[in-house]
Amino acid sequence: MPDRERRWNGWGFADESAPVPESARTWLSKRLGAGDRLSAVPERDVRIPPARPVPDLPATTLSDPSSRLRHACGLGFPDVVRLRTGALEAFPDAVCFPENTRQVVAVLQSAAAAEVALVLRGGGTSVVGGITVRPGPRPTVVLTLDRLRGLASLDSVSLLATFRAGTLGPEVEGALAPCGLRLGHEPQSFEFSSVGGWVATRSAGQRSTGIGKIDDLVAGLEVATPGGVWRLPAQPASAAGPELRRLVIGSEGCLGVITEVTLRVRPLPECRDGVAVLVPGWSAGMEVCRALLQRGPVPEVVRLSDPDETSFGIALTELPRLASSVRNAIFGLRRFRHGCLLLLEWAGSLQKVTLARQTAAKVWRDSGGLALGRTGWQRWLDERFRHPYVRDALLSAGWGVDTLETATRWSALAALHNAVREAMTVAAQKAGFRTAVLCHLSHAYRDGASLYFTFLWPLRCGDEIGQWQAVKDAASEAIISNGGTITHHHGVGTMHAPYLEREVGEQGIAALAAVTRALDPQGFLNPGVLLLQTPEPGPRTPGGREE
Amino acid sequence: MPDRERRWNGWGFADESAPVPESARTWLSKRLGAGDRLSAVPERDVRIPPARPVPDLPATTLSDPSSRLRHACGLGFPDVVRLRTGALEAFPDAVCFPENTRQVVAVLQSAAAAEVALVLRGGGTSVVGGITVRPGPRPTVVLTLDRLRGLASLDSVSLLATFRAGTLGPEVEGALAPCGLRLGHEPQSFEFSSVGGWVATRSAGQRSTGIGKIDDLVAGLEVATPGGVWRLPAQPASAAGPELRRLVIGSEGCLGVITEVTLRVRPLPECRDGVAVLVPGWSAGMEVCRALLQRGPVPEVVRLSDPDETSFGIALTELPRLASSVRNAIFGLRRFRHGCLLLLEWAGSLQKVTLARQTAAKVWRDSGGLALGRTGWQRWLDERFRHPYVRDALLSAGWGVDTLETATRWSALAALHNAVREAMTVAAQKAGFRTAVLCHLSHAYRDGASLYFTFLWPLRCGDEIGQWQAVKDAASEAIISNGGTITHHHGVGTMHAPYLEREVGEQGIAALAAVTRALDPQGFLNPGVLLLQTPEPGPRTPGGREE
Repeated sequence: MPDRERRWNGWGFADESAPVPESARTWLSKRLGAGDRLSAVPERDVRIPPARPVPDLPATTLSDPSSRLRHACGLGFPDVVRLRTGALEAFPDAVCFPENTRQVVAVLQSAAAAEVALVLRGGGTSVVGGITVRPGPRPTVVLTLDRLRGLASLDSVSLLATFRAGTLGPEVEGALAPCGLRLGHEPQSFEFSSVGGWVATRSAGQRSTGIGKIDDLVAGLEVATPGGVWRLPAQPASAAGPELRRLVIGSEGCLGVITEVTLRVRPLPECRDGVAVLVPGWSAGMEVCRALLQRGPVPEVVRLSDPDETSFGIALTELPRLASSVRNAIFGLRRFRHGCLLLLEWAGSLQKVTLARQTAAKVWRDSGGLALGRTGWQRWLDERFRHPYVRDALLSAGWGVDTLETATRWSALAALHNAVREAMTVAAQKAGFRTAVLCHLSHAYRDGASLYFTFLWPLRCGDEIGQWQAVKDAASEAIISNGGTITHHHGVGTMHAPYLEREVGEQGIAALAAVTRALDPQGFLNPGVLLLQTPEPGPRTPGGREE
Repeated sequence: MPDRERRWNGWGFADESAPVPESARTWLSKRLGAGDRLSAVPERDVRIPPARPVPDLPATTLSDPSSRLRHACGLGFPDVVRLRTGALEAFPDAVCFPENTRQVVAVLQSAAAAEVALVLRGGGTSVVGGITVRPGPRPTVVLTLDRLRGLASLDSVSLLATFRAGTLGPEVEGALAPCGLRLGHEPQSFEFSSVGGWVATRSAGQRSTGIGKIDDLVAGLEVATPGGVWRLPAQPASAAGPELRRLVIGSEGCLGVITEVTLRVRPLPECRDGVAVLVPGWSAGMEVCRALLQRGPVPEVVRLSDPDETSFGIALTELPRLASSVRNAIFGLRRFRHGCLLLLEWAGSLQKVTLARQTAAKVWRDSGGLALGRTGWQRWLDERFRHPYVRDALLSAGWGVDTLETATRWSALAALHNAVREAMTVAAQKAGFRTAVLCHLSHAYRDGASLYFTFLWPLRCGDEIGQWQAVKDAASEAIISNGGTITHHHGVGTMHAPYLEREVGEQGIAALAAVTRALDPQGFLNPGVLLLQTPEPGPRTPGGREE
């Protein structure tokens, strides 16, 4: 089937968009002031230099300007600004479309023999520079998994489904649903991101509180490496040395090309239920989430907005007059002056869902929470994949927006939330502009939770990336200094690579560099991604340490 | 507190033992015939060669014969035979007792500078040759974590407890219980094995079906390496590159010395309940287990004996006359001719446990199962840590016994069970003796389960290890050829190292070798364990592959 056309210079489908509601414009103008609108140049105005010659590769390879442009980068903030202004730093010299594992291995071997860099691409939604082609002396080929699609096999007894790496979210669920099964991994990029990309970047889905991160869903892997196919067949558990599947999960293409993934699937739930709850504040909300996770039953979705995100969410939502009056009355209560919106969803048997909801209701009531019914949850469910389109509309309207995320233990969560907000606000002030920082807790665990920050600011023409960088750097520094992980589910890419050593230690970097060098001796797979310096080929220094 | 004395040449406490019941002797004599009794030599008859000189190490170091003997090996079958016959192949030249992380690093650095091999030892219960000193040109020092004991810190908000690596099972639970918490990790070696050992070997506990393997319980780690301390602080989840904690978990001391572990703990359960169920056969039993895992609620303990283990279990259990008659009547039913004993246990709130038991009862009844009440479960609970003592008693009585374990997906479990039993039986026949192979499924997952085999045979004087090796080799070969993991929770050690490459691929071995060489350039940590060949120091061959 022909894929629905994707927007070449922004998020999502070309024929879909999400305008900024008038109420949100008012909120932003009041909070941040107006900015410079960033219009988008037409495709014909993008200057694409001639492609450098690349060796013959044993799979379909295209070098036309349109293909090169459409595979030049992901969808991070700098990517989108450069796409809109037509000012990309580099383009691939060719795009290669292998159709099966054998072709992937053959392409790797040809590319390894030649002096080219390979950028590995799944659904193309990286927001951390993981697939952005960078200038360099070597010609660059983008290897896309676009043609490795579909369900390869299903073991319905063991609830294991093996998908080719390029299979997109809706295709995964579409293949499983007729068998009464689902995966349930639903990142915001669900419609566009691929199984292989999820695994390569250690993705989390919006249901990961109940379903688990992709880390937990992977039972087996097939990886094409320059040295041949590496198979790690599905096992429920093992003690046969370190779990090497976990070394591939999150390796961001530096160890090889993930070609097939065996995933743990589950029966479609008999029943679903959800609720929006207003809790009296951020601390109270975090306590509710912690109690639900530590005492159970664990909801499938847990999503708590902080007061600023709650208030922005209200600004964005246009309700009928009566509903609006009721809402304003509730939010006008002194008790909910710093009110936080909490969305919960349960799935499973009717009995299980009913019991879980009752248990949860006791928890939120004990914390002063007030159930607002199913509407807010249903609205989120319906609109959750539309949110990223708003970025494009905001840029056109004069405001920049980006998101970043982290996670830490429950006892450190409030301090991390404060520190990151404060650092971002101060960084923007120093750079002479205002920023709004919104946050939600959206993936919860027994021992901690993730924080997902959205920041908005008025654009300054020509300095859009500089503004973004100032705030992003401050946030990254605050995260690492306050015990957060530099990324909970977006991945490292190039953006977070400078912070990785502070998180995993010099021994961690040495271990990763050693594995990368062992499996990719030429250092030609996704150079610059994950590790700041791609380990150089050639003899090691004695002692085995990187210089 | 002074530790209770351990048996130097067999399992457990010196003042505790488990005689072979008369009924079991009868069963064994009938099934296997009588064997040669393997008596144990007194300690004074063990010939211990003089210690080779070792460099001064910056921690308490002992070289007396008793310490060297008591740290020469683990408790695998060959270890115990050699201990009983006083014929160990090698002894450490010294035993080093660092008292904190700083001392461990200092010892590593001194040892790396000298030409010694280090064997890292936790509780000393390895059954796979993981801590057995082997002959070699280099003097060998055993570094024991025995003095790194106790709870280092507790974060009761995040339910995270940090223990020093040498802390033993009862000490872990003893430190947590007064805070209303538990870890719940209870391997059969619980009384003697240590936190660091659990992590180094990817241990599973008897409650791991409900609690998770140690892999899932580790939130953070501190590892002493020759290059310094490697800290991977507790995080609930991350996407910051591959999960390096998982690279340390199962690394069996080849990457460094685990000195502290932050574990995910949980509230003590309000209530526990268990039951013994008789199911009409092995297939029916596996179906019950699979249904419980895939549909939930998941029991904390699932333990299904195959028909042979069920019948041996009955032979071992002496009941009062009336109970015995009832039991014989039930097992005499045609429906239960190949009956299998299933033990289940639930823990949690009264409501949760009651509901889970009701749901499970429906599942086992649908499969023709019959609840036998709580007695069988309670007996298992009371006696489960006594079972390993039986090995020593059996050796004295003329029978060898060992265990081995694997895991695979549900759809392959029956075939794996058959193949391993068959291979072991045939191997014994070929070698001219009979063997009884018993099996239970004891760690269940949504996608598969572990199989734990016990095999018994009549000993042939002087050839005890040869007999064992013949059966063990056949089992390992059958496991690897039939899609099982070579070990589900005992670890690789030296015994399973020859099979690792067939499980994880040449790329997997290359990755492990590269990491080992990066963190232990001298190759002096647990040489021969995990990887067949300890990567040699010095320059690599071009292309990065091991020769």
